[in-house]
Amino acid sequence: MPKMWDEIHEQPAVLERCIHNTGLIKEIAGQLQSQDIHLVYIAARGTSDHAAVFAKYLIEYLLGIPVALAAASIFTVYHRNLNFAKALVIGISQSGEAADVLEVIQNANQTGAITISITNAPDSPLAVAARFHLYCNAGPEASVAATKTFTSQMFILAQLVAEWAGQRNVPTNLKAALMKVPEKVAATLELSQDIHHKVERYLLMNECFMLSRGINYAIAMEAALKIQEATYVRAQAFASSDFQHGPIAMLDRNIPVMVFASVGPALKDIHEIITILKKNQVELIVVSNNREMLAQGSCGFAIPAMEDDLVSPFFNVVVAQMFACQLALIKGLDPDHPRGLHKVTITL
Amino acid sequence: MPKMWDEIHEQPAVLERCIHNTGLIKEIAGQLQSQDIHLVYIAARGTSDHAAVFAKYLIEYLLGIPVALAAASIFTVYHRNLNFAKALVIGISQSGEAADVLEVIQNANQTGAITISITNAPDSPLAVAARFHLYCNAGPEASVAATKTFTSQMFILAQLVAEWAGQRNVPTNLKAALMKVPEKVAATLELSQDIHHKVERYLLMNECFMLSRGINYAIAMEAALKIQEATYVRAQAFASSDFQHGPIAMLDRNIPVMVFASVGPALKDIHEIITILKKNQVELIVVSNNREMLAQGSCGFAIPAMEDDLVSPFFNVVVAQMFACQLALIKGLDPDHPRGLHKVTITL
Repeated sequence: MPKMWDEIHEQPAVLERCIHNTGLIKEIAGQLQSQDIHLVYIAARGTSDHAAVFAKYLIEYLLGIPVALAAASIFTVYHRNLNFAKALVIGISQSGEAADVLEVIQNANQTGAITISITNAPDSPLAVAARFHLYCNAGPEASVAATKTFTSQMFILAQLVAEWAGQRNVPTNLKAALMKVPEKVAATLELSQDIHHKVERYLLMNECFMLSRGINYAIAMEAALKIQEATYVRAQAFASSDFQHGPIAMLDRNIPVMVFASVGPALKDIHEIITILKKNQVELIVVSNNREMLAQGSCGFAIPAMEDDLVSPFFNVVVAQMFACQLALIKGLDPDHPRGLHKVTITL
Repeated sequence: MPKMWDEIHEQPAVLERCIHNTGLIKEIAGQLQSQDIHLVYIAARGTSDHAAVFAKYLIEYLLGIPVALAAASIFTVYHRNLNFAKALVIGISQSGEAADVLEVIQNANQTGAITISITNAPDSPLAVAARFHLYCNAGPEASVAATKTFTSQMFILAQLVAEWAGQRNVPTNLKAALMKVPEKVAATLELSQDIHHKVERYLLMNECFMLSRGINYAIAMEAALKIQEATYVRAQAFASSDFQHGPIAMLDRNIPVMVFASVGPALKDIHEIITILKKNQVELIVVSNNREMLAQGSCGFAIPAMEDDLVSPFFNVVVAQMFACQLALIKGLDPDHPRGLHKVTITL
């Protein structure tokens, strides 16, 4: 099996390590609580950028603080620094080598913002540049397609938000839910045989759409990227709400749609889009912990039940990672070495 | 010809009207200058969301104020209000009926933020809800695919930023450049015969990629949406920097790539991606005002020269609109009535 497959299966152990590494997170959360933070600004690329989207939803929902995702070219192409008064600026990069993310952090340091980097390389330029560095500690990631570093980035971000939010008015018990994530990721990995069998149906797929809403929009995006990288299939991700503002015209019976439909506040809207998809007779792949939703799909993957749907992205993405890896294998491709890509990409 | 075609050609007149309607914009800019704005938060969907992306780049570049794009589901699905202290909140919707955008504006009003709506319907709920309403005055837009309302939204946003920035440290003369936009849009429309002839080459296209960087990332996204809506071709847009972080694995000789390569700070990076595309022998469509870039394409569309590339999105998008409309026609489709879409889409 490819390294990607092995690294997907390391995730319960990697996330278990994250649970026991909360000292610095508590210290940072304490500092953030003592400040009047008006804005969180996050810089990242590719898979790391999808961890940033996950964080945007978590922070806005649990802390009520607006989150902006960086357009790095403002710094690297237009050479403008921003006013980061009362801002927390976060840079995320697996390798810690992302030159554009580094530039955002360096600029933010100059304006006195609190800066945090999240990397899997504690000696990297980005790890060194930020005021605080949170280490993924995921072990070396050999496959070009990032998997375990993504879930560890999400886990660290969720821990930080949970600590920062503390007890104040949080409509959820994210901290308790996070404790159970490693064991439920392990349970999700038991779908591997199921995925192996069902993926054959998609051998000749050239295109697909990935839909969700709310916190799992980040996972629709990450699922699309994994499929693009590992299989070259042209996967497009949309929030189901955005999909209805134009892209829905592309619906075609020959283009499968994968929908992430976890039980939670967004399920009503996702159910609506599933109804539209069924009416259009598209080939529907459902990833869900709701029996009714699963029954709608030509193909369904059952993720665990959970108390708080804010952790559903961990299980949804594990399904997407396995699906992308298995699809690459039956298509005769090597997911560890996609054409045109290297493990570390530096853009300015 | 379809209504979309007529409405594309109304744009010089619509933008000319915008030039003479700056009274309220000056008043708002004066108020913004007197405040200490730390954040701009913009809510919009579909085409209007691409005007928001354009505004993000303009505001960050010319004013140095961070801009966040709304995840509307925070308000409508998770029922959370954000802390908008020292924020300007903008809602953009052609019809002014977008219920999710309205909810963001209503929430922002409650927290004391300055709110602005931009619509083409002065009696609409969104127009009424915001503290200030900026009217596109584009005339009725009958085609489902928005064209003239998009360029008028961009024009109004650019006017607002130019007035707000005033004389302080602006590395550009955006105001003077905007005055010439209507006449240069008219010049761009003279490409219609050229586009009509060249589009035949793409009769059988099912997929394409749209790339750019910096301010024209918004136009890559809008070009993709126009092609999706009018022709059902699966168009995907990327910032060239993001493209290199994974999606580039999808490159295929049979999938054309349209690149917006205007002279300006981002051209160096765009040139780099063009070099990679040429090496991969992809079918390349170049929209540019640089002779060298145009010569790289199997097909090139020449937009006008300009003093400030911040206005290049107006000319690039007009080319994309005409291309999408003409491609729909040779494919035997009706761009005014795409399948599965209505003019006003309300999502919550």
